[in-house]
Amino acid sequence: MGSKEAGKLEWRISVDNGTTTERLVPKSGPSERIFLWLKGLVMKVIVERLSKFMRKTWRIGADDPAKVVHCLKVGLALSLVSIFYYMRPLYDGVGGNAMWAIMTVVVVFESNVGATFSKCLNRVVATILAGSLGIAVHWVATQSGKAEIFVIGFSVFLFAFAATYSRFVPSFKARFDYGAIIFILTFSLVSVGGYRVDKLVDMAQQRLSTIAIGTSICIIITVFFCPIWAGTQLHRLVQRNFVKLADSLDGCVEEYFKKKDVLKNENEDEETNMKLQGFKCVLNSKGTEESMANLARWEPAHGSFNFRHPWQQYVKIGAAMRRCAYCLENLSICMSYETEVPDQAKKHFGEACLKLSSASSKILRELADMMNNTRKSSKMDFLVFDMNSAVQELRETLKSVPVESNKPKEEVPNNKGDRTMSMSLHEVLPVATLVSLLIENAARIQTTVEAVDELANLADFKQDSKKKTGDNKAKQPPLNS
Amino acid sequence: MGSKEAGKLEWRISVDNGTTTERLVPKSGPSERIFLWLKGLVMKVIVERLSKFMRKTWRIGADDPAKVVHCLKVGLALSLVSIFYYMRPLYDGVGGNAMWAIMTVVVVFESNVGATFSKCLNRVVATILAGSLGIAVHWVATQSGKAEIFVIGFSVFLFAFAATYSRFVPSFKARFDYGAIIFILTFSLVSVGGYRVDKLVDMAQQRLSTIAIGTSICIIITVFFCPIWAGTQLHRLVQRNFVKLADSLDGCVEEYFKKKDVLKNENEDEETNMKLQGFKCVLNSKGTEESMANLARWEPAHGSFNFRHPWQQYVKIGAAMRRCAYCLENLSICMSYETEVPDQAKKHFGEACLKLSSASSKILRELADMMNNTRKSSKMDFLVFDMNSAVQELRETLKSVPVESNKPKEEVPNNKGDRTMSMSLHEVLPVATLVSLLIENAARIQTTVEAVDELANLADFKQDSKKKTGDNKAKQPPLNS
Repeated sequence: MGSKEAGKLEWRISVDNGTTTERLVPKSGPSERIFLWLKGLVMKVIVERLSKFMRKTWRIGADDPAKVVHCLKVGLALSLVSIFYYMRPLYDGVGGNAMWAIMTVVVVFESNVGATFSKCLNRVVATILAGSLGIAVHWVATQSGKAEIFVIGFSVFLFAFAATYSRFVPSFKARFDYGAIIFILTFSLVSVGGYRVDKLVDMAQQRLSTIAIGTSICIIITVFFCPIWAGTQLHRLVQRNFVKLADSLDGCVEEYFKKKDVLKNENEDEETNMKLQGFKCVLNSKGTEESMANLARWEPAHGSFNFRHPWQQYVKIGAAMRRCAYCLENLSICMSYETEVPDQAKKHFGEACLKLSSASSKILRELADMMNNTRKSSKMDFLVFDMNSAVQELRETLKSVPVESNKPKEEVPNNKGDRTMSMSLHEVLPVATLVSLLIENAARIQTTVEAVDELANLADFKQDSKKKTGDNKAKQPPLNS
Repeated sequence: MGSKEAGKLEWRISVDNGTTTERLVPKSGPSERIFLWLKGLVMKVIVERLSKFMRKTWRIGADDPAKVVHCLKVGLALSLVSIFYYMRPLYDGVGGNAMWAIMTVVVVFESNVGATFSKCLNRVVATILAGSLGIAVHWVATQSGKAEIFVIGFSVFLFAFAATYSRFVPSFKARFDYGAIIFILTFSLVSVGGYRVDKLVDMAQQRLSTIAIGTSICIIITVFFCPIWAGTQLHRLVQRNFVKLADSLDGCVEEYFKKKDVLKNENEDEETNMKLQGFKCVLNSKGTEESMANLARWEPAHGSFNFRHPWQQYVKIGAAMRRCAYCLENLSICMSYETEVPDQAKKHFGEACLKLSSASSKILRELADMMNNTRKSSKMDFLVFDMNSAVQELRETLKSVPVESNKPKEEVPNNKGDRTMSMSLHEVLPVATLVSLLIENAARIQTTVEAVDELANLADFKQDSKKKTGDNKAKQPPLNS
């Protein structure tokens, strides 16, 4: 209480001071200065936060212009449908039919063609189904006299229960989740609506025509105006993930064996770190891959993809890639081991490890190329053979490692003839782990190759013309055609 | 063509046969038999498929009764709102106000309280915001004479663009995704609707009151009728995942070191396999954890959780657990190595490995207990100390391993004094990998313990009364109260 009074007093004094000494340019008292400082601080915080948020928001669009295009398309579709109905007010207020067209556009328009198609189809089919069922139930209810309300209530309960339950069945949910919602909605509206049946047919016709207008505007804009295909996105995602895995693998192993040799500047360091962490994208892309594969099957033929393109195979490829990524995650821990690995051990394994990792990453890059060109690879067998012989070589290196067995350090001849210090298993362990993970990773890459080969067979990838894979990279045949 | 004709002929003959010889019990000719067989086959396939589907569908409900409860609740809410409006037909057909109440229930009702709350709030706030904005734009449009249609079209385009873009900003999407959709919808409807402004206020009032009825029915039913809390589900998920990790870890290491000792029957084998694969659930629960944490913060205090319970900490715990799961994924590969590990190596490491794995899994189980009781653990420090000394012991075992260094096998004394065959690094490698993964896993478990400790501090878990942890298991204080 006392300090508050003092504060007030001080404030009054400082104001008095300000007004009596210099009326136009008041000298700021301490409280005023505090106020100004606080104001400045708050403004600074707000401005900083806002600008940070804006920068982040800007980056989202800059990183993926497809998102901006999608927003433009939504705006366009909505303006079109709004203007259409604004110019032809054939409806009775907001509750009328225009509403259904606008609502259809808002709810159905998704960022890729597959999702939009799936929602349109779901909406139309569910509306028709639920509409006819609703009319039937409504007719039964009106015939049943006093039990009317119970018939309505019970049927709404029953169908709402069944439709909601069906949304928990994974195979149903993947395709018809939206349809189930629309089914419940339409069924309730129709069966509850106090219409006579003869009026219902009129209404149904109107409703269907507005929904048809909404869906056709959506489909036309989504397909003919910079289409974004779920299939293409999935294909690209898998391709990019191959490159990321290859980068991470190369980066990890190189970093490990050359840690202290090269001094890099900060920028390069950050870039390397980004590359090393690439496998994390692969770890986290399961959900995206699955939903994209689900949506892609709704899409018509586009670019290099037929209508019956084996999209589910991408999910299998993704799973195989994730298994490689688990290996890389554990590989990356080898780099942070506390135990100092003797240089000698690194030297002993370095060459063979680098050879294996580069052979492995070459395969991953070739797989990315295969995806990019949608062609079978002519040199894959050769690359796999290379990798397997690198594995064999690494195994040989393992066998020839000079390890001491609990004895004081001594000089033992290694297989190259020169004399090196032998190492204890404890010291070699991190390298040994790295080696065994690399070998396991090679095996997992091989299963990935098999999965991609299966895709190539299922989707009838063309045979690669000889010695073209190198040039193809420069040409980059358009996927989004 | 020929065979088709022959088929027809045969069919006709068999019919003739049937009708002339025995009129009432026709002898079935070969084609008839084929037809019957085909019919039986088709029926069998359909019945089998249907019954399989039904069994699967039944299992979903049996495994998680909360889902069935949710369906019942949806049915109840919809019947209530339907009957309410059926009995008081104060609306003008299906397009009227009843629609908004029914639509609110259908779209807003989610399986847990947090999601329902979040959608209700989003819906109400977005409707009010967009409604006022829409009225303003509509007024501007009507004032601007001939430019009216351009004002409407452009404003719809602009706001639809902005709202759609905002849905790509992750921090916004996590909370206000549904609000953005409702915003676009309401804004378009209001600004396009050809109303005079004086009529709009009336309409707005009606609309808001119907939405209020819909949301309050949803909220009342979701909170007071077997509530399913996102927070509790998240808490339980994390707790269950700890147990799964512990089971997997125990299972893997035991399986590895006792592979050939025990002969199990098939049932047990399947159960063991389920346990071994438990870590896969942890690998896949990232998305669920994040969305649950997002929803849980909308929920009021319930059970042992305050309103400001640190739900985001669960995401951190989940991430730490996933890092353990990556280790286990790689651990499980050690079991499928081609290289036959000499029994001697298994024997050498077995004891220490089993000790470490059981110390690690004890910690995981204690963490699960901590979560279950929402109490701090009194013996965690002790368990961590145990684990660390097990790690130390394993390291010692590593140092004392008798490894041959590229020389013919010979007998070397190990630290226990008895003489064993020495092994090559190549032979020891799988075990060495297992060992190093176990050690790494211990480090990751420690970071998990830290994360849970942080949660315990943030959420003010009570101190564990001494020596109670054992009994608590039996008591199982109710979480869903």
